[in-house]
Amino acid sequence: MRVAVFDAYGTLFDVGGALRAAAEAEPEAPWATDWAALARNWRQKQLEITWLRAVAGHHADFAQVTADALDWTLARAGLSDPDLRARLLDLYGRLPPYPEARAAVEAVAARGLPCAILTNATPAMVTGLLDASGLGPLFGEVLTVEEAGVFKPHPSVYALVTAHYGVAPDEVLFASANGWDAAGASGFGFQTAWINREGAPTDRLWAKPWRELSSLRGIAGLIG
Amino acid sequence: MRVAVFDAYGTLFDVGGALRAAAEAEPEAPWATDWAALARNWRQKQLEITWLRAVAGHHADFAQVTADALDWTLARAGLSDPDLRARLLDLYGRLPPYPEARAAVEAVAARGLPCAILTNATPAMVTGLLDASGLGPLFGEVLTVEEAGVFKPHPSVYALVTAHYGVAPDEVLFASANGWDAAGASGFGFQTAWINREGAPTDRLWAKPWRELSSLRGIAGLIG
Repeated sequence: MRVAVFDAYGTLFDVGGALRAAAEAEPEAPWATDWAALARNWRQKQLEITWLRAVAGHHADFAQVTADALDWTLARAGLSDPDLRARLLDLYGRLPPYPEARAAVEAVAARGLPCAILTNATPAMVTGLLDASGLGPLFGEVLTVEEAGVFKPHPSVYALVTAHYGVAPDEVLFASANGWDAAGASGFGFQTAWINREGAPTDRLWAKPWRELSSLRGIAGLIG
Repeated sequence: MRVAVFDAYGTLFDVGGALRAAAEAEPEAPWATDWAALARNWRQKQLEITWLRAVAGHHADFAQVTADALDWTLARAGLSDPDLRARLLDLYGRLPPYPEARAAVEAVAARGLPCAILTNATPAMVTGLLDASGLGPLFGEVLTVEEAGVFKPHPSVYALVTAHYGVAPDEVLFASANGWDAAGASGFGFQTAWINREGAPTDRLWAKPWRELSSLRGIAGLIG
């Protein structure tokens, strides 16, 4: 293996963090007890929109998609409120990393592999996450779908890695907590670790992940 | 308008019908009270797989996708049981039509428009639905994604209609209960009626439906 590539949302950064923080700040809000369901619905709708736009060839960037998904989710819940919307989008821009993320990436780097991020996000969104979390210095490169003009799991997104580093697909260690992203990366030829945080069944797609872990802990141990 | 085209699953046929019928036949089964949630999860996963396969360029037919989605859903619920799986797939092959479907399509035909189906299904799946429901004689044509080799909302699927009938997109009246399908069809240029059975917010995608109805009732009234 010659490079280690990490997905961002759900893998390094906790996508539930925005609603959790909003609920902690406003525990009496009528939606606060339902924050986890709202976070799941927002995430689900956000991913749906990325896939649908990729199928239909109507790309919009991830900032737009994230706001659109939030608008739909809040409307569905009867919570259309400009202040709440603005607060959640702001929190989404500084999602917390998972507790093990820093040490796991450091351990990979200590094995001599350059580390990169490959994400659906816009460059500005990634910069915001890395600045807020302090994880920026761990990554030598941030590759975003904006360079491909289409969302994951389109193969041209995974090809950004092989083109940038001049490596073969099977020289890439790729980590994603998103089963569909792991399938896309595996189908492209990456050595893929699916970070199965929720103990979900393996996705029935066109390729299986190479390895499965319950968190990023242990990722460095996969380097042969 | 020169042709009326109907989506099948969710629009003419009730995708919840398989689990509802299975629960009615076996009301003491431990999953019977949760049948609606299982049906939603199965449908959601089925659609996800279609979108992901379309994005990644790994097509498989809808029979395969439907079985894969069921396997995932049953595994997730701790219900992996070959008998239940076989029963549900059999019931899925003869989903009930919505109560208003026949009269609504007949009313469109009475306005002089040829009626067709455009569906993600395989030809064999549609034949099964039409035979079981007796709705077959209402439709002069059944167009399936198998002719395009990719799932909705890829534009080449909607183009099957314009190519087959030799019409312009805006001469097509298209009805779908799936908001994302309505967006795909609208973006292609069809006059699209979104059958919003659940009172959901409009999808935040690249195109809005032309009209919105709460069921197929009234669809003939949209013909100018």
